Amino acid sequence: MEQRLTLITLGVSDLKQSRAFYEQKFGWTPLPVNSDDIVFYPLNGGMQLALFPDHALAEDAQVDSIGSGFKKFSLAYNTRSEKEVDEVVADLEKKGVTILKRPQKVFWGGYSSYVADPDNNLWEIAFNPYLIPD
Amino acid sequence: MEQRLTLITLGVSDLKQSRAFYEQKFGWTPLPVNSDDIVFYPLNGGMQLALFPDHALAEDAQVDSIGSGFKKFSLAYNTRSEKEVDEVVADLEKKGVTILKRPQKVFWGGYSSYVADPDNNLWEIAFNPYLIPD
Repeated sequence: MEQRLTLITLGVSDLKQSRAFYEQKFGWTPLPVNSDDIVFYPLNGGMQLALFPDHALAEDAQVDSIGSGFKKFSLAYNTRSEKEVDEVVADLEKKGVTILKRPQKVFWGGYSSYVADPDNNLWEIAFNPYLIPD
Repeated sequence: MEQRLTLITLGVSDLKQSRAFYEQKFGWTPLPVNSDDIVFYPLNGGMQLALFPDHALAEDAQVDSIGSGFKKFSLAYNTRSEKEVDEVVADLEKKGVTILKRPQKVFWGGYSSYVADPDNNLWEIAFNPYLIPD
């Protein structure tokens, strides 16, 4: 298998609420699709983030839909400077987004903060000197 | 915020077991790093997949580490043909990977299967005529 990822799907509890988060707080624009049941956001590298109702995702994968608590994954939005971390997090906080960890220096040499989406999916907003976006 | 994702981190229960999965079953090669606590796999578009112990991820994000059941997200590996889905899934099955859903035509026009990593993270192996890798 190639080292490749095409799609990350978040199984959400309320699609309308999650769309509002990604479009109004993050400011992202979805792809036009003819469905009220799924939304796709095009990202870097031909990848997409999809929002899909959690029960529909479980049904599609043929797994039990019951789950609670920490979901044991995080997504990261890396910035080009520490200052940009502060700016992004301040803007999200102003828009009412839950800040889980305020921007701070971390042991591996970066500067990092965590925020939560409406389903408590973790987004790390970080400056990583070893992983700077183009 | 740009429509960009730099890193997906999976909080795993046993880093050695997860490394074995991604390196021996998927056949992926990690980046060289000087740490026994984290592994990075470079993917398309400058993105990376990281494996990190689940308790360490919770601690880093300053959230409770308790969680169980369905994690409400999936990752997708898209192929260039339906035949390639069959081949990838057959190869994974031969290597002992749990097949959650056998390759089959799905309502949206694709051909899809789901497999599980050692922490029951969902990987969809799919041919999607609307999302074919370069």
